[in-house]
Amino acid sequence: MNEQPHSHHMSVEEFRRRGREVVDWIAEYYREIESFPVLSRAKPGEILAALPPDPPAQGECFDAILRDVDEIILPGLTHWQSPNFFAFFPANTSGPSILGELLSASLGVQGMLWATSPACTELEMRMLDWLVGMLGLPETFLSHGKGGGVIQDTASSAALCALLAARERATGGESNEQGCNGLLTAYASAEAHSLVEKAVKIAGIGRRNFRSIDTGAGHSLEPAALAQAIARDRREGKIPCYVCATVGTTSSTAMDPLRAIGEICREAGAWLHVDAAMAGTAALCPEFRWIHDGVELADSYAFNPHKWMFTNFDCDCFWVADRAALVGALSVRPEVLRNPATESGAVIDYRDWQIPLGRRFRALKLWFAIRHYGVEGLRAEVRRHIALAQTFAGWVREDSRFELAAPAPLNLVCFRHRAGDDANLALRDRLNASGDLYLTHTRLDGRLALRMSIGQAHTEFRHVERAWRRIREEAARLSLAPGSD
Amino acid sequence: MNEQPHSHHMSVEEFRRRGREVVDWIAEYYREIESFPVLSRAKPGEILAALPPDPPAQGECFDAILRDVDEIILPGLTHWQSPNFFAFFPANTSGPSILGELLSASLGVQGMLWATSPACTELEMRMLDWLVGMLGLPETFLSHGKGGGVIQDTASSAALCALLAARERATGGESNEQGCNGLLTAYASAEAHSLVEKAVKIAGIGRRNFRSIDTGAGHSLEPAALAQAIARDRREGKIPCYVCATVGTTSSTAMDPLRAIGEICREAGAWLHVDAAMAGTAALCPEFRWIHDGVELADSYAFNPHKWMFTNFDCDCFWVADRAALVGALSVRPEVLRNPATESGAVIDYRDWQIPLGRRFRALKLWFAIRHYGVEGLRAEVRRHIALAQTFAGWVREDSRFELAAPAPLNLVCFRHRAGDDANLALRDRLNASGDLYLTHTRLDGRLALRMSIGQAHTEFRHVERAWRRIREEAARLSLAPGSD
Repeated sequence: MNEQPHSHHMSVEEFRRRGREVVDWIAEYYREIESFPVLSRAKPGEILAALPPDPPAQGECFDAILRDVDEIILPGLTHWQSPNFFAFFPANTSGPSILGELLSASLGVQGMLWATSPACTELEMRMLDWLVGMLGLPETFLSHGKGGGVIQDTASSAALCALLAARERATGGESNEQGCNGLLTAYASAEAHSLVEKAVKIAGIGRRNFRSIDTGAGHSLEPAALAQAIARDRREGKIPCYVCATVGTTSSTAMDPLRAIGEICREAGAWLHVDAAMAGTAALCPEFRWIHDGVELADSYAFNPHKWMFTNFDCDCFWVADRAALVGALSVRPEVLRNPATESGAVIDYRDWQIPLGRRFRALKLWFAIRHYGVEGLRAEVRRHIALAQTFAGWVREDSRFELAAPAPLNLVCFRHRAGDDANLALRDRLNASGDLYLTHTRLDGRLALRMSIGQAHTEFRHVERAWRRIREEAARLSLAPGSD
Repeated sequence: MNEQPHSHHMSVEEFRRRGREVVDWIAEYYREIESFPVLSRAKPGEILAALPPDPPAQGECFDAILRDVDEIILPGLTHWQSPNFFAFFPANTSGPSILGELLSASLGVQGMLWATSPACTELEMRMLDWLVGMLGLPETFLSHGKGGGVIQDTASSAALCALLAARERATGGESNEQGCNGLLTAYASAEAHSLVEKAVKIAGIGRRNFRSIDTGAGHSLEPAALAQAIARDRREGKIPCYVCATVGTTSSTAMDPLRAIGEICREAGAWLHVDAAMAGTAALCPEFRWIHDGVELADSYAFNPHKWMFTNFDCDCFWVADRAALVGALSVRPEVLRNPATESGAVIDYRDWQIPLGRRFRALKLWFAIRHYGVEGLRAEVRRHIALAQTFAGWVREDSRFELAAPAPLNLVCFRHRAGDDANLALRDRLNASGDLYLTHTRLDGRLALRMSIGQAHTEFRHVERAWRRIREEAARLSLAPGSD
């Protein structure tokens, strides 16, 4: 923003005016959000074709830009913040979080080093310490000891950083020096997120050294199968270095048994990373904290406030019980980044805790969200979502045409029409094409299941009730008979 | 935002009111920004101690949050957007970019798949295509062919993705399957950013397989030394797979000779990645496009609009000439992400072009910035910064107590007082402690140099002039004699 006349920059006064217009635009968007089809109806290439092939030579008026947001962008959006969005996992946001992100973009500070904005690092330390208590996580994760927490962009990056730390610890740093040698092995359940396999590939460990472990009851990792796989690898001279346990799988919120897995990891000297990306938020409520039983055996843990805790993407919180291996894996110290604070050893430089060097001030939005809601407010909203999901699961149980496809411990209900896979896909496509709601599918025990994921900030009883009505209506129109395919 | 009474969520009307307050806060911040010490004076632990040890149980009023931004956060900021910020590289932003980020946070869409918001993917494709023309990059980078562009968070992630693609291509996918085998080698100049070494470590290639190549005149990579290193590695049975050339090194904006390096890479079958993170923006101006001579030999290229193109962090633009190896290296396709659009093969799913799965709508802010300024407006601002730097370099040349430490082809001037390293460090610390400006140092030819990096949006002649006056004043107070240490 600029005070000079004839500058190309937006003046402070124009920013004030345009900023208010954008705030008003957003307010109207949220008022109207239920009037848009949830899943965009754009055809491939349609938005691209509506955008000019070349950039403007001269600057354009902000009015023209906002008009194009309405006319070109809006029809190409899938409305993740709609209360009728039940697909994937939520990626909910909130007013205070949005305003925290706005402030962060405006301050434009870099948090790569403590010195490049001390508040960016120290507010992040405090937020991550707060969350240790809020989720009932082990005290070893607190920043004043050997451990600590950091904000990553996503659970994928957190799991990768954990794997790099595990690799570092297992090889005494040799993997960083000599490169991988084909001996390290990594483990996760067959229901774990694909991010584990992706991390294994990126880290040079190789997909053949990744073990997809059988699941047992409720689609959770079978500890005996893990122990067998590790023992077999050790006999063959492999070095089991990393186990990723999932608290709330993507398919069905299955809960891996952390305590049993943790004991196996301790015995084997393997790093235990816990991925609680979506479900971790439930641990805000004492009555759901059982999902973390055994988490004190974890070397690292991640959950995403940007999924279910009203904090806009990206915001993954990642903790380690001992930061030495993480920093050892990721630290490179060039001359241009040397500074008195770093050399004093008295500060944390978060660049050594992540893949990128630069980092923006993401703790602001988390601080805004936690303070706006308060712990009790967050708990109330989480309980509300879980209650809605349980109500929905009850309706499924009572309707003989449908069945639950998996246990529904929290806010995700996996269900299916009894008419088989093709019928369920057709049902999904008709519902999504209607624009009334958006839900996605998975495959459990070899069979298709629809996923009703409840976690958008503004989803209320009436939205869930209508979704169930629409599901039954479309099923009736398909004239589905149980087992018809 | 919510219309319900007694909800914990911020209501639409409260969002409108609070949004305006935050916009006003930001406008005032930009008005007052020159009154703050550029480098924060906070002591380690000071901000942390000012923040409560526990989160609030009940939600707090937004007034209290904004008050704490003023009282606790502001003193802990290093003001990157200050016109007196001359440290590192710029990470400039602008009104339109900030408002694009605000809109992105509010829409809260995920761009992991085309289907999860078609506009998010297609606006990004169009922006990256626009920039190919704007920077004079090769047409192979355009999205309608085999190549294409994508927004990454940082140049570090871009260089890592390029390395993973290089690894994939060099081994025919075996590195993903079997893991790294200690044979792959990677190369960059001794002046390249530490991100190359970090990527080599992360990818499991190992630091011992990273070759730091000598630089010649002007601190740019010496092609003969690269050719020798590659030949030596091949004789020893290694597989040279990746060269990272730098257009504008971090230390001194040295320009690696892309054409000579590209020819060596072609002959050796190695992937050429070009890191033009900061300097790439200069190529908006035809008269600076010489920095890209030979870029048509590159397999991939990255530059950061979040450094010098008035687009707030994070926004790194990354292109590949052939996306097959990139997607091959990074693609994992679980059932939950299957959808009709992906299966049709008619769309790009950007999750396969990056480390994380999730991604926010970053193209919006780039679109807002390019349209607000227009190509000519961006060029004018870049030319203005370069002219300011050249003026500063002229002053250094004319003062016998100082000397230039490296050529200054663009907007960075490396210089030193002739009194030696300790004197220059003392000068840096006095200037930074004064709060009047912030600059950082580097080491060139074994000697310390101060870096005057000019690229903040609102830096004008008067700021550069004052910086030079303050440098001379503090040097005089130190009573420095040439060669006194």
